[in-house]
This record gives sequence, C-alpha cells and structure tokens, in this order.
Amino acid sequence: MAIHKFRPEVYHDVLGQFEPVLRVDDGDTVITSTVDNAGHDASDTHVAHGINPQTGPFYIEGANPGDMLAVHFDKMLPNRKIGRASVSIASNVVDPDYIAEMPEERVIYEWELDPEKGTATLINPDPELGRFVLNLSPMLGCFGVAPMRNQGIAATTASNHGGNMDYNGFGAGVTVYFPVFVQGALFFLGDGHAVQGDGEITGMGIESSFDVQFTVKVIKKRINCPRAESSDYIMAVGNARPLDQALQQATTEMIRWLKEDYKLGDHTIGVLLGQCVKYDIGNVYDPAYTVICKLNKKWLPK
Amino acid sequence: MAIHKFRPEVYHDVLGQFEPVLRVDDGDTVITSTVDNAGHDASDTHVAHGINPQTGPFYIEGANPGDMLAVHFDKMLPNRKIGRASVSIASNVVDPDYIAEMPEERVIYEWELDPEKGTATLINPDPELGRFVLNLSPMLGCFGVAPMRNQGIAATTASNHGGNMDYNGFGAGVTVYFPVFVQGALFFLGDGHAVQGDGEITGMGIESSFDVQFTVKVIKKRINCPRAESSDYIMAVGNARPLDQALQQATTEMIRWLKEDYKLGDHTIGVLLGQCVKYDIGNVYDPAYTVICKLNKKWLPK
Amino acid sequence: MAIHKFRPEVYHDVLGQFEPVLRVDDGDTVITSTVDNAGHDASDTHVAHGINPQTGPFYIEGANPGDMLAVHFDKMLPNRKIGRASVSIASNVVDPDYIAEMPEERVIYEWELDPEKGTATLINPDPELGRFVLNLSPMLGCFGVAPMRNQGIAATTASNHGGNMDYNGFGAGVTVYFPVFVQGALFFLGDGHAVQGDGEITGMGIESSFDVQFTVKVIKKRINCPRAESSDYIMAVGNARPLDQALQQATTEMIRWLKEDYKLGDHTIGVLLGQCVKYDIGNVYDPAYTVICKLNKKWLPK
Amino acid sequence: MAIHKFRPEVYHDVLGQFEPVLRVDDGDTVITSTVDNAGHDASDTHVAHGINPQTGPFYIEGANPGDMLAVHFDKMLPNRKIGRASVSIASNVVDPDYIAEMPEERVIYEWELDPEKGTATLINPDPELGRFVLNLSPMLGCFGVAPMRNQGIAATTASNHGGNMDYNGFGAGVTVYFPVFVQGALFFLGDGHAVQGDGEITGMGIESSFDVQFTVKVIKKRINCPRAESSDYIMAVGNARPLDQALQQATTEMIRWLKEDYKLGDHTIGVLLGQCVKYDIGNVYDPAYTVICKLNKKWLPK
Repeated sequence: MAIHKFRPEVYHDVLGQFEPVLRVDDGDTVITSTVDNAGHDASDTHVAHGINPQTGPFYIEGANPGDMLAVHFDKMLPNRKIGRASVSIASNVVDPDYIAEMPEERVIYEWELDPEKGTATLINPDPELGRFVLNLSPMLGCFGVAPMRNQGIAATTASNHGGNMDYNGFGAGVTVYFPVFVQGALFFLGDGHAVQGDGEITGMGIESSFDVQFTVKVIKKRINCPRAESSDYIMAVGNARPLDQALQQATTEMIRWLKEDYKLGDHTIGVLLGQCVKYDIGNVYDPAYTVICKLNKKWLPK
Repeated sequence: MAIHKFRPEVYHDVLGQFEPVLRVDDGDTVITSTVDNAGHDASDTHVAHGINPQTGPFYIEGANPGDMLAVHFDKMLPNRKIGRASVSIASNVVDPDYIAEMPEERVIYEWELDPEKGTATLINPDPELGRFVLNLSPMLGCFGVAPMRNQGIAATTASNHGGNMDYNGFGAGVTVYFPVFVQGALFFLGDGHAVQGDGEITGMGIESSFDVQFTVKVIKKRINCPRAESSDYIMAVGNARPLDQALQQATTEMIRWLKEDYKLGDHTIGVLLGQCVKYDIGNVYDPAYTVICKLNKKWLPK
Repeated sequence: MAIHKFRPEVYHDVLGQFEPVLRVDDGDTVITSTVDNAGHDASDTHVAHGINPQTGPFYIEGANPGDMLAVHFDKMLPNRKIGRASVSIASNVVDPDYIAEMPEERVIYEWELDPEKGTATLINPDPELGRFVLNLSPMLGCFGVAPMRNQGIAATTASNHGGNMDYNGFGAGVTVYFPVFVQGALFFLGDGHAVQGDGEITGMGIESSFDVQFTVKVIKKRINCPRAESSDYIMAVGNARPLDQALQQATTEMIRWLKEDYKLGDHTIGVLLGQCVKYDIGNVYDPAYTVICKLNKKWLPK
Repeated sequence: MAIHKFRPEVYHDVLGQFEPVLRVDDGDTVITSTVDNAGHDASDTHVAHGINPQTGPFYIEGANPGDMLAVHFDKMLPNRKIGRASVSIASNVVDPDYIAEMPEERVIYEWELDPEKGTATLINPDPELGRFVLNLSPMLGCFGVAPMRNQGIAATTASNHGGNMDYNGFGAGVTVYFPVFVQGALFFLGDGHAVQGDGEITGMGIESSFDVQFTVKVIKKRINCPRAESSDYIMAVGNARPLDQALQQATTEMIRWLKEDYKLGDHTIGVLLGQCVKYDIGNVYDPAYTVICKLNKKWLPK
C-alpha cells in the first residue's frame, strides 16, 4: 500500500497502449497532477499538445483483462489561480431552427480559483452577474483505462473504457470502476473542472490544472461499462450517442449489477428502479454522450 | 378569485376541444379529483375508459391563443388506500441486445398509500425488500391544455401543450405555464402518481386517484413549450423523441426565457447555463420523452 | 364498384373524426382533386386554410376497427401549370455546427408543370442550372385514415394512421394499406408533389394541386403500420423520430408481414432481408420521419 | 504508375499507425487479397485474428495530412467458393417491444460462390426458398485510412477515416475519397461481401475472402468525410449514430462539395438536393451507422 508521488513529464491525448509512466501495486496510492484541457500546467505554461492531455498511463500490477479496476479519488483540487470556461452554448443542445439566433463567436471567460475559500470568481465582471462567485465542485472530466481491441481512442470522447465523460459527480470521495482490457489496465487521468453544469453544454467546465490523489484496487469481477460509488449512491455509466443509447447502456449495467452482485430478482429490481432510480446527464457535448443511472444505497437490501 | 369545488362526471383520454366541464375566471381556484391511469376513482371503481383519463376541460375566461396559462398546484394527494405500479422495466430503456434477458410478462405490485403518514408500503412483501416503504412524493403525470392546430392528442403522449410528461418534479407548490392555443385554454389533468422514479421506466409510477387543488392565472406572454417554477428553480420542458431533441427543446426554451424575461445577454446566459444548469429526465417511456432544463433561482440577477 | 366523381368543398388540416364528405362502397373508385400544401386549388386560388389541407374524409362502408383499408392510386397528376418548391435546406438535415453557414431566409422557386410532356421546368432561370427541367414523378405527400384513440392529428405529421409521410414512392400504380381505427376508416388525401427528392429536405416537393383517382378495398386483416405494394415491391412504412425508430417500425412490420401472410420462418426471413432488403427514406423534415423497408417481390416464394 | 502484386502476411483489426506493408507512388495500382470478416483466407484457413482483419496499411508517397486520397476500385471478386452469412436479424433494427419474439440463437448459412456465373447459391436448401440464387454484387465492407488524432480505431466501426461502413454501393468501378490524417495516408482494406442487403441488418453480408485491385491518387484538397464517385453518382458519406446524425454529416459534406468544387450557390444547391437527392443506408448494425447522400451527375452543371 505504497504512496507514490509522481510528477508527470509526458502526456497523451489518446487513451491506448503507451509505455507506462509508473508501475504501482494493487492497493497503492498515487499523488500526481494533471494539466488542463488545453495542456497548460500549474504555472499556466503550455506543456502538452492536443485536447485533454492525460497524465499516465499507470500500470497496475495484477490487473488482467476481464478484471475490474477500482479507482478511488481521495483528493482533487485545482492547483492554480486561473480557470477558463467557454460561455458559448453548443449548437447540438439547442433546436436546429434556433441555432441561427445564437452567437457564432466562441468566447472564453476567466475565473479566479481559490481552493482555500472554495470559490471560483469571474475575473472580469459580467454586466448582469458582476463578479459572480460559484462554489468549487472539483471533478475530473476525462479518465479511464486502455480501450478494448487494442484501440487508441482520443481523450475527446468516451466509451466503455471511460474517457471524456465530463460528469460533474466524479469528484473526491467517489470510486469509479472500469473493465480491464489489457495487462496492467493502464489508467489515465486529466481534464479537471473546478465547476461544471450538467451536460457540459458550453463544451467546457471551469478548466484548470489539478492536483489529484487516487488509490487503485484490482477486483476479480467482469463488468461491461464503468460503474461508480459515492457515499450515497451506486452508479452505472453509459457512454454513447444518442442520449437514448447512453441511458440504455447505463440502465442495463445497473440491472446487471443488481442481479449479479446484489442477487436481486427481476421484480425486486423493478420495484427499486421503477420508483427510486435517478438519472444524471454527464455530457451532451462530446462525440459520445454520458448518462448516469443511479440508486441510493439506502434502498438496497443489506 | 372564487374557489370552485368540482366533482367530475365525464373524463377524456384525449386532450382536445371538448365541451368545458366548468368555466372559471382568471385567478380562480378549483378543488377537484382525478381518476388513476386506468380510470379507477377514489373507491377504486372503474368510471372512465382509456389510458390516463383526464378531468376537464376547464375553460379559463380571458385566456386567448398566444397567452400563457399559469397553473399553480396548491395541493395534491392520493385519495384512496390502494396504489398500483408495474415492476416490469420497459424494453426501450435497456440495450437492444439485453432485452431477451428481461422477463416478458408484465407484473403489477400493489401498494398501501397512507397520506397522513406520508408513506407507500408494499402490500405483499417482496422476497428481498419485505414490506418496502417509500415516502409519498405526489405528482401529476399528465396535464395540459388543448393542443395547437385544432388537434386532439391522446393522454398517452406529450407535446408543447403538455400532456403525459410524467415528471416527478410536478407536485404541489409548483406552477406550470402553458402556451394557450384555443379560447379558454381548456385545461385537463389526471394520472396522479404517489411516487415515481426518474424516467417512469416501468411505464407507471405508483398510480392512484387523487384530490387536487389548483389555481389558474392568465398572463399576456407568448411561450413555445411548457415552463415551470418551484420555490428553488425555473424550469423549461421539452417533450419529443429522441431524448436529444427533448433536451434541445428544453434548453432552447430556457435560453428564450432568460433572454426575453430576464433580459440577459448571450454571454451571461452562457455563464449561468454552462456552470449551473441542471437537467432532469421526466419520462423515457411514452411516445414523446420529457427533459427538464432547470436553473436555481439564486443564480438569477435580481 | 361504382365510380364517384367528387368535387371537394371543404378541407381539413387535421386527420380525425370529421363528418364524411362521401360514403363509398368497398371496391368503389373515387375521382377527385386535392389542393396544394398551402390550400391553393387548380386555379391557384386560396380555398383552404392550414398546412396540407386534406380532401375528405371518405367513409368506406364495411370498414371496421381492426380491418385493413387498401387504397390503390389509379391515377394522379398535377392539375395546374404552376408548382412551387422551397430551395432552403432544413436545419435538421445538416450538422448543427454547419447551420450558421446556411442562408436564413426561406426562398421559394416557381416551376412550370406540363403533365402532357411530363416535365417540370424552372420558370426563372437559375444562374447555374438555367431553365432546369425535371421529369414529373407525381406523388401524394399526405394521406391516411382517422387515427387511433379518437385522436385528431395535424396533416403536418405522420403516425401509424399514415399522414404526412412525404415518400416519393407513393405515386400512381401503388396500393397503400392502412390499419382501420374507426368505423368507415375515414380516408383523407392531399399535398401532391410533382417531383420530390428523398427526405423532402427543403420541406417541400414541387407543390401543386392534383387530380387523383383511387379505388378502395376493405380487407379483414390486422396490421400495425401502413404497408404498400408496387408492381415490383412490397413495402412497410415506419413513421417516427428519430430515423432509427422509423426504420425499426418499418423493419418490424415487414417481418410480421413475411411471417403472417407469407408464412415464412425466421431463417427464411433472415436470408431475404439480410441479403435483399432495401430501405428508402421518405421524409426527414416533418415532426415524424418516414422510412420504408421494401423487398422485391421476385424474391418471395410463390 | 507501377502495378504492385502484394500478398499479405500480416493483418490488423485496428486502423491506425502501423508499419506500412508496402510503399506505393501516387498513381500506382495494387493487386492484393483480403481475408473474410473472421480472418479466413482464399483456402478458408484461419490466418488473422479479430473482426474484419485488414490488409495493409499501404503507404502512399506524397500523401500528407490535409490532402485527399482517391482509391479507385478497379476489380474486386470473391476468391473462394464458400461464403457465409448470418440469418439472424439484429435487435437494434426492430422495435424494442418486438425483440422478445425474435429467435435468440445466431445462425449462419453457407453459400456457394461462383464468380464466373456471377452467382451465390444457398448450399443447404431453405425450406421455403430452396437452393436460393442471388447475383453476386461484390463490395468491400471495411476500408479506410489511419484516423485523426493518432487514434487506432477498431475495424468494427467507422468514422471520418472510413472503416466499417458496410455500404453495398462500394464495389468495382467506384472511387472513394478519404481525408488524409497522417503522412502516407496508410490505407487499409478488408471485409468483402459477395452480396449484402441495405443496412447489413443481420450483421453480415455473404462474407468471403476477396481478390482486389485498386489504384491510388493523391489530390491536394481538404475534405471532412469520405466521398465517392461512381459512373452515375457523386456521393458523400456520414458515419455516426444515430442514423439522423449520419444523414446530417452526409448532407453537410455534399453541400460543401457542391459549394467548393462545383462553385454552386445556396439556391442552386437547394434546387438540386431538394428535388434530386437520394439517400442510401449503408449499415444500421455497427457502432457507427452509415448514410450516403448522393446526386446523379447528370444534374450537375457542366
């Protein structure tokens, strides 16, 4: 259960079978950092090319295809003062007939991040909102493992290996589970958001470089899509287009989870999901959209 | 500002231009009742045919095409002890390849409703959940006005006139706004659910007849889709298929709202929606799906 | 087997349970006319309000809910010289990010129709195409029966009762089959196009009033969606959104047809559809899209 | 303009930046072979792992990112007697509610291929169809170039680099154009079908190893999606989910083509596409669906 402090020097804008930057044991903890969506680090210096450059991959000893990798996010915080967010709403979240009324130019606003106070504050006052202040709610937008079929998939999109899910529920205290497709799993992470609305509908949260601490665990279990667990919820994640298919994947993975792990019958599952299920929308901006199907753990039989 | 106690004797399974059952003034309050999704009343007697039979229509004096009708739900509660809910998850919310593993037979569970304690309790113990108890969270699944273009649209589906939206946020204390398409608006309501998970993925909440009290108001304003307001949120509603289009409609209506009523500029809207928007999924079961785009009122400039 | 010459005086922009304009017997033929999409007749006079005003409804004696109505189009031709078509491509058929580059203004071009020569000719020469000439390929865009559940559905959209399918394969010589939902079936027709590309992507074909001759037949068979038959093909029609669902409906209805009427087994159907199926796109413009699943009759076992 | 006879020894089930198997000049012709979808060669021996193993990549001298690669298929024919096709219709092309009525077991039928007679004949007589005979219509299901952003994308899916498009119009005599993303373009090909219905709705055409002859050309032009040209048509290809988005991509690329290469104005394009466009459905089976937007070349101004 070692703790590794790892300072990245190389970044990848693709999740695939690259040379591991560090090998860690099952149960180990890693303290590292990520650059922002545009490759800028804690000093706001451009150090990585591409979109959502990833720290990693981390090779987890003992992780084999068919296993499940658990990644618990112990801590995550922006590690610099400047955050940037688009204020331009994406054309794919408004009616096609309304797009012509939307401004064409893409505009970025700057925010001052204060992790101690826990705030993000608009640097240039907005005419209506002034120096608008939001509470920090740090999350990672893109993280995951090397994909199936020896693919290398851009950090702009998502699939069953994780990737660019942009779900604002993936913050500190949450454990995310991935199917393992290659030896060592090869875990990547990046694209921290200090704050982000549902759907990431401007294509950005408040983007910043981050300090992140996470702990890995290998579990001998086969899953199909990412799953996650917070203090209150179990969650299944669907990454696909359109939203309908993302929701189908998430719901199906939740049903499998309840059947296989909790040994619940069809009717019991129907009671729980029919009356207690919640859906969250991760992103509706990236090439693959993300839907979370979640169930409060208080409803689960002990 | 009269208060009308209205006891329905006729029900419609289509929202359209039927003979009004009652004419009320702008500002009036109506106390009435609805039958359940299958046409059973407070005594569990079958009194109405079709699916989601509606009480109404109520003719609101002074409501003209191009106006907006505000319906505030003052109170709503199940008015009988028996509730019924399907435990069979719909085929359209799971992966097509997984459907063959789902049970085919549609199964209904009965619940005991206790409005005083505020609980719904499984009548026959589930093998895993026992006599499972949920808190009542009463909502109306289907309500709305006579549709545009002189149509008559079944109470099984939804469009910009409202209809079968099945959103679990539409309970007491909420005001819902509709575009008015015909003289008198012709407001209908029905399909009460004692409890319902997101998406209505078994095709039913815990269905019951209801007592409902609502107050109407005519506002001289043109809107495109239903809107709503709770103590905390403003909400815009998209009813369409697929989910993507429902979300596009809801987001577009929210942008219009912020522009026209709150006089916000594009960039201000981009800040608010980009970092603070929330999406809820009403239903993913009916012919038209429902997505809610909502914004906490605390973020709105005074 | 009477032949009725019927001159319409009233039109409906909704398909629903209106007073029949004519009662005909099973096997009868009707010779009538339709106005164009904007309600203009053979003399280009505005005689009907709404979009796609329909001639009818025709009450077919002996047609009962659960039956199938066959409508054979004996003849159809534009009955005036002037046709009109939009040249503005709809926003929902191009990439959301490309819409801002499309012209906003909706522009209509006029065409000279010559049924004897069988041509449509641009009246004002296009700078690139000059006096562009196309062969007439007359079709009806909107026709169908009174919908299920006592609904009244606008002639702008489509469902399992038919309606605004805008499929360029629905011309003379084709028989279209509808499920019957109400006594007398109540058949409507209108929205003739002299020419139309796949998908009706400008929202219009070359629109004209039409002379139409059709023959009806009642068949004691239950179907779920419209079906059709030409000299070469059997066709099943899906009307829904998104395109994927329209295709699913059409494919499912074709499978049912092959199973129930042709008594083919699953594997035989798999051979035929897997290697010989064709799909056509009716419209991708209207609220419900239309996909046709078709199979050449030469492949069918005798 | 050399002619290269190339006998493959290595295959890839991913399209990405692998070591070129052959370097050819702009204008050169390659005569080679492909294995079938399951990795079986002309002798029906299993020689390649994965799904749709690809021959290549071929490095084309002078092809640089931002260029367009033209691949003309001079000849393609099955090179063995045995073909195999599934008769099991995919769950995603039928109504979700109908899936439970479809057979679960996946069944493969064998076909005898006779390139001289130009026929495919069922080896085991079907109870209804007997020894059913179809005309060969050879096509390649999967081919393309190395993808953008240094990705490696499985030969089971498609994107703007081509890939598993499964369009039955991609046979001999057709030229397909690809955007070039990496030096040398890196062209791959495989997955030959002797016959295939629209949509590849059983997930397979009649699969066989193939002999293929193609000629490459580098053109200094930037395109966004694959394009193609046959003797009669120009075609633009959209690869995405859902079908709606594939159609949007294809239509957008066609509009760009008409604007940029044919220098047509918006209204001229609206005339041509509005009244003359045709859509074909490539596949509705793979992770990305394929739609072809095509226009008969006779309509294009000289």
